Formats: sequence, C-alpha cells, structure tokens
Amino acid sequence: MDVLESVDAYWRAANYLSVGQIYLLDNPLLTRPLRAEDVKPRLLGHWGTTPGLNFCFAHLNRVIRERDENMIYIVGPGHGGPAAVAHAWLEGTYTDKYPDVTQDEPGMRALFRQFSFPGGIPSHVAPEVPGSIHEGGELGYSLAHAYGAAFDNPELVVACVIGDGEAETGPLAASWHANKFLTPGRDGVVLPILHLNGYKIANPTILARIPEQELAALLEGYGYHPHLVAGAEPLAVHRRMAEVLDTVFDRLRDDPTGRPPMIVLRTPKGWTGPHEVDGLPVEGTWRAHQVPLTEVRTRPEKLAALAAWMHSYRPRELFEGDGRPAEIVRAAVPEQRRRMSANPHANGGELLRPLRLPDYRDYAVEVESPAARTSSPTGVLGGFLRDVLERNPTAFRLMGPDETASNRLSAVYQTTAKTWNAATLPTDEHLAPDGRVMEVLSEHLCQGWLEGYLLTGRHGLFNCYEAFIHIVDSMFNQHAKWLESARRIPWRRPISSLNYLLSSHVWRQDHNGFSHQDPGFLDVVMNKKAEVVRVYLPPDANTLLSVADHCLRSRDYVNVVVAGKHQAHDLMPMDDAVAHCARGLGILPWASTDAGEHPDVVLACAGDTPTMETLAAAALIREHLPRLKVRVVNVVDLMRLLPPSMHPHGMADAEFDTLFTADRPIIFNFHGYPWSIHRLIYRRTGHANFHVRGYREEGTTTTPFDMAMLNGIDRYHLVMDVIDRVPGIGATAGHLRQRMVDARLRARAHTREHGEDPPEISSWTWPARNGEKEQ
Amino acid sequence: MDVLESVDAYWRAANYLSVGQIYLLDNPLLTRPLRAEDVKPRLLGHWGTTPGLNFCFAHLNRVIRERDENMIYIVGPGHGGPAAVAHAWLEGTYTDKYPDVTQDEPGMRALFRQFSFPGGIPSHVAPEVPGSIHEGGELGYSLAHAYGAAFDNPELVVACVIGDGEAETGPLAASWHANKFLTPGRDGVVLPILHLNGYKIANPTILARIPEQELAALLEGYGYHPHLVAGAEPLAVHRRMAEVLDTVFDRLRDDPTGRPPMIVLRTPKGWTGPHEVDGLPVEGTWRAHQVPLTEVRTRPEKLAALAAWMHSYRPRELFEGDGRPAEIVRAAVPEQRRRMSANPHANGGELLRPLRLPDYRDYAVEVESPAARTSSPTGVLGGFLRDVLERNPTAFRLMGPDETASNRLSAVYQTTAKTWNAATLPTDEHLAPDGRVMEVLSEHLCQGWLEGYLLTGRHGLFNCYEAFIHIVDSMFNQHAKWLESARRIPWRRPISSLNYLLSSHVWRQDHNGFSHQDPGFLDVVMNKKAEVVRVYLPPDANTLLSVADHCLRSRDYVNVVVAGKHQAHDLMPMDDAVAHCARGLGILPWASTDAGEHPDVVLACAGDTPTMETLAAAALIREHLPRLKVRVVNVVDLMRLLPPSMHPHGMADAEFDTLFTADRPIIFNFHGYPWSIHRLIYRRTGHANFHVRGYREEGTTTTPFDMAMLNGIDRYHLVMDVIDRVPGIGATAGHLRQRMVDARLRARAHTREHGEDPPEISSWTWPARNGEKEQ
Repeated sequence: MDVLESVDAYWRAANYLSVGQIYLLDNPLLTRPLRAEDVKPRLLGHWGTTPGLNFCFAHLNRVIRERDENMIYIVGPGHGGPAAVAHAWLEGTYTDKYPDVTQDEPGMRALFRQFSFPGGIPSHVAPEVPGSIHEGGELGYSLAHAYGAAFDNPELVVACVIGDGEAETGPLAASWHANKFLTPGRDGVVLPILHLNGYKIANPTILARIPEQELAALLEGYGYHPHLVAGAEPLAVHRRMAEVLDTVFDRLRDDPTGRPPMIVLRTPKGWTGPHEVDGLPVEGTWRAHQVPLTEVRTRPEKLAALAAWMHSYRPRELFEGDGRPAEIVRAAVPEQRRRMSANPHANGGELLRPLRLPDYRDYAVEVESPAARTSSPTGVLGGFLRDVLERNPTAFRLMGPDETASNRLSAVYQTTAKTWNAATLPTDEHLAPDGRVMEVLSEHLCQGWLEGYLLTGRHGLFNCYEAFIHIVDSMFNQHAKWLESARRIPWRRPISSLNYLLSSHVWRQDHNGFSHQDPGFLDVVMNKKAEVVRVYLPPDANTLLSVADHCLRSRDYVNVVVAGKHQAHDLMPMDDAVAHCARGLGILPWASTDAGEHPDVVLACAGDTPTMETLAAAALIREHLPRLKVRVVNVVDLMRLLPPSMHPHGMADAEFDTLFTADRPIIFNFHGYPWSIHRLIYRRTGHANFHVRGYREEGTTTTPFDMAMLNGIDRYHLVMDVIDRVPGIGATAGHLRQRMVDARLRARAHTREHGEDPPEISSWTWPARNGEKEQ
Repeated sequence: MDVLESVDAYWRAANYLSVGQIYLLDNPLLTRPLRAEDVKPRLLGHWGTTPGLNFCFAHLNRVIRERDENMIYIVGPGHGGPAAVAHAWLEGTYTDKYPDVTQDEPGMRALFRQFSFPGGIPSHVAPEVPGSIHEGGELGYSLAHAYGAAFDNPELVVACVIGDGEAETGPLAASWHANKFLTPGRDGVVLPILHLNGYKIANPTILARIPEQELAALLEGYGYHPHLVAGAEPLAVHRRMAEVLDTVFDRLRDDPTGRPPMIVLRTPKGWTGPHEVDGLPVEGTWRAHQVPLTEVRTRPEKLAALAAWMHSYRPRELFEGDGRPAEIVRAAVPEQRRRMSANPHANGGELLRPLRLPDYRDYAVEVESPAARTSSPTGVLGGFLRDVLERNPTAFRLMGPDETASNRLSAVYQTTAKTWNAATLPTDEHLAPDGRVMEVLSEHLCQGWLEGYLLTGRHGLFNCYEAFIHIVDSMFNQHAKWLESARRIPWRRPISSLNYLLSSHVWRQDHNGFSHQDPGFLDVVMNKKAEVVRVYLPPDANTLLSVADHCLRSRDYVNVVVAGKHQAHDLMPMDDAVAHCARGLGILPWASTDAGEHPDVVLACAGDTPTMETLAAAALIREHLPRLKVRVVNVVDLMRLLPPSMHPHGMADAEFDTLFTADRPIIFNFHGYPWSIHRLIYRRTGHANFHVRGYREEGTTTTPFDMAMLNGIDRYHLVMDVIDRVPGIGATAGHLRQRMVDARLRARAHTREHGEDPPEISSWTWPARNGEKEQ
C-alpha cells in the first residue's frame, strides 16, 4: 500500500469525522439515506480551518511513524475542535479517555452528537480534547506555547499550526523571534506551519495577500528557513507536503543548529468542502469559515449536498461496517506510545516531578526587633530563586520582560545566565545559550512561554512590573479558564501553578509615575473561579520567602504575589513569618495595644507600603493616645477575607468577627483599589465599619511618602481617620488631629523643596522602647 | 552658516538640556563651577534613549524648515521625557504653555528643577509635554498611534521613533503591517525610525543583534524600504542622516504610492554621555539606560565628570548669557506654525469638529407593546453607524478585529468598505483602499489606531467581542490615565471619547463557549477615575441607539457600551427609550405590579439577557403570585448606582432608596460578575437586601437558556429567589417553587435531547393581555 494513499485515507477519514461532528445527530456512517432528523437543529462549529489541520496531522503522523519522532501538535487557528477530536478518536485515544465514545458506529454517533451540543464538548481544542495544550479560543498564543513546550525537552518536536488570522495578532507576531531563545540540544524542535487559507472570519488575511517574495523575506527576517507547500489538488499537495517534511526532518537531523525550518502551507479555506452554495463560491472563500451548508433540515437540496459532501470522502473505504477505522486508515496511525493525541507532554501533569526546593528558612533575614531594619524583599528572594534554579537545572525557568534585575532578583545570575542565542558583545553580562532566565521585552512571550512550559509538566515564575501585568490580562483569563476546566477532567493530571511575582509596584514608581501605577490585576484575577486563584501580599522579606515556597509547591493554581523591591522593614523572624503566612492574616501583637482585649479600633493592612504606614500610625497613636486600644491586623492571603462559601481559603464569620470585631471601626490600608476589599467583605457583620484606604488613581513621579499622601494611605491620615471614626476620641484629640494635618503639609513642603521625603519618614523605624515596654 | 552645523548645535543644546533636567537643581548654565548642592539629591530619569531622540528631532526640524512639512513626532522609547521637554523649550512652546518656565536662565532653572521632581512633571512624554500624543510609559503602541494619527490627514507626516526594546513587544511587531491600511493621498505619511541603540533596561535587543541582512529582510517583509543610518561619530552620522532624510522625502514627494520608506538608526545608547564610569564602559552599553553617573553629590570626581559631560556640549555656544538659545540653535527651529512641539494635531482637541450626526430616532424600531417583537440591537445600530460614516467621510472610523459583520454591523458596508491595500480576489467583498471600516485581527491595532485617531482630533468606535477586549486592558488603562491627566492641563483641549461597543457577549457564546465568556472588562474600566469612565448596558435596540448617540457626542471619556447582536425583545418606544437612558435607570411600569406603592420585592436588571430573564420572571410571578407587588427596575447607566461622591452620574441616597427601597429584597440580575454590583452599592442603606445574580465562570458551548441556568440568572431561578427572600411567601408558594425546579430540569433535559432551548423559552414574549389588564 502506498504510504500517501494511507495518508490520504486518514485525511479523508478525519475530514469525514469533522463534518459529521458539525452536522449529524444520527446515521453517522450514512448507512441509510440522510434524513433531516439526522441533522442537528443548530449547526454550531467551524469547517474552514479543519481540512488544513487534518492534512497537517495526517502528514506529521507519517513522519512520526517513519522516524519515530516524539511529537505534539498545537492547533493555533480558532475552532479547531472538530479536527483535534477526530484525530483523538481515530488514534483510539478518545475512547481511552472517554470509554463511552467507542471506536465503532455507536461511538461515532456519540462523538458526532456531543460536539458543540448542550452537555457535550466545546468547539475549540479545549482541555477536554486529548493531546491539546492550547485551546485556540483567543488567538495569538500558539507559537509562544509551542516554544514553551519545547524548552528543556530535547527529544520533543512541537509542530505548531499557525492560522493566518492568528498571525495578525501582536503576540503571534512577536513570537516568531522566540527562535533566539531556543537552544538546540538542550531544547526541542519547534516546527511552525503557517497555514495560509486566506481568510479570517470575514476578511482576507494580510500574510495571504502580500507578495510571495515579501512573505519569504519576512519569515527569513524572523530567522527561519521557509518551505512552501501550496495547491488545491490533493494528490499534488500530498506529494509536496511529504517531500517538504522529509527535507525538513532530514535537515533537523543533519544540521540541528542550522537556521530553523518552517512550512508555509497555502491551501483553500474549507478545502474539499462545498465548492459553491446557492450560486456563491464557498470553498476557498471566507464563506467557508463556519458552517458552509445551512438550512439542511429544511431544504432538501441542502440535505442532498451535505450527503454528497460526506460521501465524497468515500466513507466505505475508511470505516469497517461496524464503524471501526479501516486498515488503510489505521495504517496511518503511529504506534501507541507515539500518538500525538496521547503524548504525555500534552498532559503535562503525567510528567510532573516536584521541584527540588532548598529550605527557604535558610534565606531568612534575622529580625531581632520588628521594623527596626530593612531589606529588599525581592532581593532576599533572589537568593532563594538562585538555588531553586541551581537544583532544578532542567525543570524551572524564571521569566521576565527585561525586569529581572530591576526587580532585584539579580542573585539568580550567580548560578545561571539569561538565554540568548543572538550575537553578543564583550560588554554584555549574563547572556548564554544555556541560560535559564528568559528575558524578552514582551509580557506576552513571557506568559506564553511559561504557560507552554507548565502545561508540559515543568515549573516557573514570571516576574513583572505590577502595572504592566495587565498586558497579559486576557492570557491570564484564558489560562485560568483552562485550569478551571482541566480540574474537572479526571484524566488531566495536576500541573504546576502559574506563579506571578509582581514587583516595582504602584506605591514605588518614584521614577516612572502615573503610567506605571496600576494595582488592578488583582481584580482581574479575583473574577476567576476561587478554586484556581490565590493572591498574596507578603509585607516583608521573610513572609515573601514563606509565600514563595508555598506557591512553588502548589498545583493547578494561579498564584499572584505582590512584593516590593525597595528596602522594606523586616517585620518578623522566620518562625513568626511562617505562622503568619500559614494563618494568612493575623494580629501583629507587638504593634497592638489591645492586649488581647476588645480593641477600640482595628488598623488593618495588606501590602508592604500600606503596612509600613499602618505601623507608623500605630506608633503615633501609641505615643499620643496611649489609652486607646489599637489592634493591628496584617493580611497576607487576600482570599482569607472571603467567606468559606466563596473561596477555599475563606474565613468563617465567627473567626472574622473575632479578628476584626463586629462593632469597632476598622481602618483598612490596602495595596490596591479600596473597593476591591469591599467586594470581598460585603457579607461580613461589621462591613459598615470598614473604612478602606487604597490607590485611587492619584499619582505622578514623586516621593514614596508623597504618593502615600496623594491617596490618603499615609500614617498621618490614618491617625486622623482614627480620631474621626472612634466615637468620643475626636473631642479630646482635636489638637492631635491638627498636628497630623500640619505634619502632612510639612512633609509635602519638604518634598517640594528637597525632592525627597523628610528623614523622619524615610528613616522611620518602629519605636523599639515603646514596643519593649508593652511586651 | 552650514545647515548641519546648526543642526548639530541644536542637538547639543537639546542634549545639554536633557542632562540638566536629570541632574540639576541650580546653576543651569554652569556659569559658576558645579557644586554638589546644584545637583538633585535623587536622580530620577533616563539618559540612554535621549540623545538619539534629540538627534532625530533636530534632523526632522531641518526637513520641516526646508520643505515646509507639517509633521508631528512620536516618541516610542520609554523615558523620552527629557528630550521632548527640551525641544518644546527650545522651540518656545514650553514657555507658551507654561509661562513661568521662561526661555532664559531662570526658566531653564525651573525647567531643570521640575523634571521628575515632586510637584513637577513626569519623566515620560506625558500629556503635560507639548507636542506629544504618546506617553511611552507602557511600550508597544507608538507605531499604531502614528498610523492612527496619519489616517485622514493627507498633509501630515508622522515621524515615529521606535525603540528597539519596544520593538520586541507584540503590539509593535503587529503594527508594522499597518502600512496595508494606509492609503496615500487620503491619509498622511508615517515615517518609522527604528532606533537601534542596542539595549533595553538590562539586556541587548533582538533587532540590534540579528544579522544586518536578516533585519533588512524583516523590514522588507513588513513592506517597507529601509534606509540605514549608523555610526557613533556625530559629524558622519549627521551627514548620513541628512542624506537619507533627503532621499526619503524626495521619494515621498516623487512616488507617494511606492513602497513606504523607513529609517534604521543605529547609534550608541547614551551617545555623547560618559564613555566610562568607575572603569566600566557606559556609553553604548546597557549601563547608559538610566542615570550614567551616580553619587554625584558625594563623590567629587563624579561631580567633575558631570560638569565635564555638560561642558562637552559647549553651552557657551548654545545659549546667550541670559540663557536664551543662541542664534545658531534658533536657526534650527522651524517657523512657528510648523513646530512639532506646537503642532495642533498633537493637541487634537484644537482641531476637533463635532460629528455630523443623523437623528438617531429615525432608526428606531416601532414598539407597540413591550417585549412582543425582537430585533438585533447592533443590527439596528448598524443603520445609524452607516449614516454616521456617510456624513463624516473624513473624521469617523469604525474599528473591529474582523468582527464587524459578526457583530451585525454590516449595514455600514452599504456606504463604505473595509480599508485594504493588499491584493484582492474576485470573491472578496467590501474591500477598498478608501474604506472607512478598519478590520484587522488585532485588538491592539484597533485600539492603537483609534487612540491615535482620537488624539489628533477625530472620532470613532471600536466594536469587539466582549471577552477579547481584555486583550487591550492595559491600553485602555493607559488611555484612561492620559485622559485623567489631560483634563487637568488647561491647554489640552477636550478630545472625542473612546467608544467601545462590546457585543457577542458572555451570555450568547452558543458557538464558542467558555473561552469567549468574560464580562470583566467592566471591572477594569470602573477602576479608573470616575470622571473619565462611563458604562452602559442598553437592554434593547432603541436604548442602544440613544446611548450610542450620547456617546458619540461626548468628550474626554471612555464609554463602554455592552449590547447584544442576537434578536432581543424590543422593550420600549423611542421616546420612552430616550427618557429611560437620560435617567440612566428606572422602573419598567408595564412589567411592575406595585402600582406606585411600596413594593414587596424589587427585580433589578442590567444587560439584555438578564433583563429578558427578569421580565420573564416578573411575568411568572404576575401569573402565579398575582397579589405580590413587584417592581422591575432596569439599569442602563451602571455608574448611576454609585453615590454622587464617587461618580458624576452617581445617585443620591434618597433617590436610590426610593427606587430600590431600603427595606425590601432586591434581586439584581446582572450582565457581569455579581460582586461588581456590590462594589458599587456597598454604601447604600439597603445594601444587605441586595441579592445579585451574574456570571460566575460557569459556561460552555450550550444554549442561551442553559447558559443562564448555569449561572443562576434564569427566570425560574429568579422566581425561586423571590419565594425564598420575600418574608412569608415561602409558606404559600412551596408548590410554585417546586414547579420552578421542575421547569429548570425540563428545560435542561430539552437542550440535552434536542440541542436547543424549548420553544416556550426561545419564543417567549411578554404576556400582553396580562400587561394590558394591569395598565
């Protein structure tokens, strides 16, 4: 049997199954004449991209069989669901994962019926589809995912079909240059297949309509060696594709460090589908994007056209009488361990090994008395991350958009470099092909690479300026949705969490000002399902170490850690930090004056700058209003504020009320937008007593304390708040209130004159003697 | 005087002024030896990119002078503030806008002192900088802004310096292809200047380190004709730059439709700055990124180095004794009306003309009785937008990421086409070089183009799938921040609002499922300053028309309109719709049974699907619990829910309490996440009585009603809610509650069997007879 005959049969079978999924409720093998009631009443699905996806898959399977390649398949074009599902079924993987969808006629019926059907499966290459690590709903990330999957997988080939619609997106356009960050030998192969079917939803695509020569120049400019496969006549295109794939894989074997090859596949949109419908051309046009034939249940000629279309694949040759794939189709399927639909890399949890973590307590800063000395929390974390990188030389990567040094994590360069395969100069530092820190000025690439790396069973951390993490809001959304879905799929094994370290945060943009101030990513994160999201605001170095260790051990979450890079007060010794982080929030006894009694007021805080201002306010109150019983509560794990019904970390009302009181004013100094706290606590008994301070979009290039004052989270304002809110105090503390007003004016005037904060602010420490007296 | 001598003098002056801004508090002309106290205590600013920016500006000024070009200058690289401020001062514009910063020594002192200083100006090319439409804080959008500015400005040249760091971002990488959407003759010229200074913050850049030939191929592949200018020796680079600019502008004049030219400028980072500091190379390395010389106040040799650096520009030649620019510098400045720092296109409000709007009431659908018939709201809006396009053939554009037809706005193609300058095929539809609908599969480009278009004084609307607008969250953030700042700058004239039409929304992703379901953009928007954000959820076609008209007339806002494209019930005649939208929210009397009395329960709703379910629930209650007094409140303008202290549209407590009651249960059926409502109303008297239903991340590819049921916003669930929440009802309505449970189960079973909603759901209309009886 000619190999290409088998490839063609496989392709026809996949096309047949794809059409069947879009259209049929019953009569899957067309064993009887097609009737209206065999057809779904609502036709939901997309044909346009499918035959091209099926074509590539069929041909890659030949390469796998002949060369024993270890390969996964990433479907970039949107709406690739029918194709990916068809392959998983033809390869037997679908039945392995979903035993009720058998590889026979009843199974085929079930397969068809469930597609894009209520209670069934989605129309995209969703987590439900075996062999997938990429959904393709939101376009633009296929190639970044492919590179992420290939890093540190030297045996793996990641074939990545890129739609020409998707190719217009920014993230995809940036992803081509990822070849400068892939190191042959250490990393696997990424084989981009740019599929030019010419149209997106309703428009032609740019790359399909620029001159051939310009396209070639573009792809060569990206650093690839493009191979063109073009045509509409199946046999000719089969021959050309096979030839090109042989050339490509020969080159990869013979010259692995050469210019990376890629394929440009130019075939008609909706290839092999209806050529014309109602007198209008369909195949090869934008009309083939979705469902080329409609009104199939109501117009007999459409029904006949559908039957003719499906028969055009000659199903009798492709399936046995009982519905099993025929020998000619089965011959095109690789052996079990090499099937792309069953490749464990596409179910990364199967390959996941826990990180070898050093003991984070070894990196603790010593804290003899609270808030007396300062450290750079991320600077301290850098030492821990250095050793995480060192102990996990093939399974952990640190991503950053050119900000790793700025975020004070430079200790990592003591053990590894930044991955770099382009030219270097003598003045460069810390660049090497085998570097494990990935720095590129694209948050999209950092995120996409890390997602691909995690989904294939490895670990990592993405460090980013807080404001600019919004650039990947939508990528976060999609990854969170993937995790939400994957958790409900029994055969999907847990993967390592996606860890964000957000530094250079809103309160310390002295250099950069307003455009760099945005703590709103937390709100985007908190909109996703509670079971997959975690938010931590460790206030100092030791709590950051504890939180980081916890996050790196976790699975199937998105962990967001916000931490400062500037010098921050060391608040607690390591043991206390561990206990505090384990509780997620708690009283700082040394800063409180309630001595275990019911307090007069609660000062709550979350985030390093708000915590420092809260402590300074507590010190002022202790000094000036010594009889006031103040409780200082610090929140590290923001999700603790939710009720247990809304988050697994949620705190019961009784516990919440005990901590915050149900009847005392609570002045809450928050890192982010103040309403973000209200949305977490609106069901609590004492909610009306919460007065939340936070970022209110007031900012510019200024000093840290001026920034705090602009948004009313400064110590003086907090003291005024206490005076205004605690019943009865105002009467006796009018003088103090005026002093606070004056102190703010003085502090501001100082910044205007000297360009920096007054020394009593910038070198403030916790007044130790008072502290000792109280303890 | 040799022209290039003058250009060089201007360049040196700009460099001198840039260094002065970063470093000096006093002694701006170095008229006496530099002392430590002349230097700022905190050195905040960035030198690296500055000399290159100054170089380009100086040379473009020569072109402007010699050819009388109308040009604006976009500074892509981050931290370009010192450069842009220096030019505005040298051109006299700074003094025009800020009279206290005079063009003499005291003014220069003020100019230096204010930069990156508390109470001063930001370090980026912020709205405060005359001549800027692009801040450069968040990188990646310069070229998209440039194209947006050039559209429909045939006389304008937009020179756009692109940093090689910025060039790694996705949005920038996608922007190169914008040349396929620019039509010579109708649109102006975009001249990209890719500035390869080799480094971003701490790393080399990709484009600076790929082979020269690969870079050329890449830029040719993008469709440009690149011209290289490279070197470190100023005189040689001056000559080459002048020669290339002459070639480029000759070509633009002689062959305006030819391959668009661009410039690659390869000069050292921190050019002309300190060559070496502490024995380490600085000029031409990443060390020049920020402040090359530090510890200037404490180490005399550093102070001397700073003085030497500043003297190297020979300030005596550049400034008169009183600080005014010397003749040789002034000679390089274009005449008043051509100065880039004063170009009115960069203060677009100066050029803004109101749109010529047709009367939106002419497009109204007739509504004889409420919720009896259906229309596609966006389909109806399409007719209005068609005529907006027709009446404003040079000042309004419609942007969409390949979704304009999908969002049912196709009526616009009756009057215009989609802009397209690449090849076309006979089967293409509605493509033309003079099209005014901009479709590209990049939300980043749609947003960037529109921002550039608005900031230069024109109007537009961006239509997008709701879920994927998150792709531009961070661009929205930056534009909102620009507006927030610009409103406080007296000379910045108001510009047209940025209007989003979000359709294909969370509740109707029957095709696409989970990845296409995300209503969280509203939360991102509501985090920004109340004065610039507006959110509208018109429930039907007529309210959408009214809202759209309002948004297109508004200034300096970001308006977000969420509206369905699917058939939705027509709720109210046009006059009622206008009144309802003017109020922003209100009682639907025909759906209510409280007859003006205090109701037993309030059913509130916002968004088309939640409103339909609320109405259906009201109808069920009317039928089954006829004595219950139900008030139905619909919210169009979400910001009305806030208190007046938090938003200009905010509603006073008394009015709020009258409408929603302070003591009755309120079941609120919301389009977005339920906590988004709580964060708006947590201060209201009756807040504890609000029970908000909304999207809870439950979704898949399914029917509309199944989707509503999955998230508990369906009619049956609402009736159950009423039974559970209205005191005393539960006792008598146990039977009805069970019927509701059964109805949900039946509806779900129907979808599982037939793949579509039961007819009583899909063809539900408001029960007119009951309605009539009540009226």
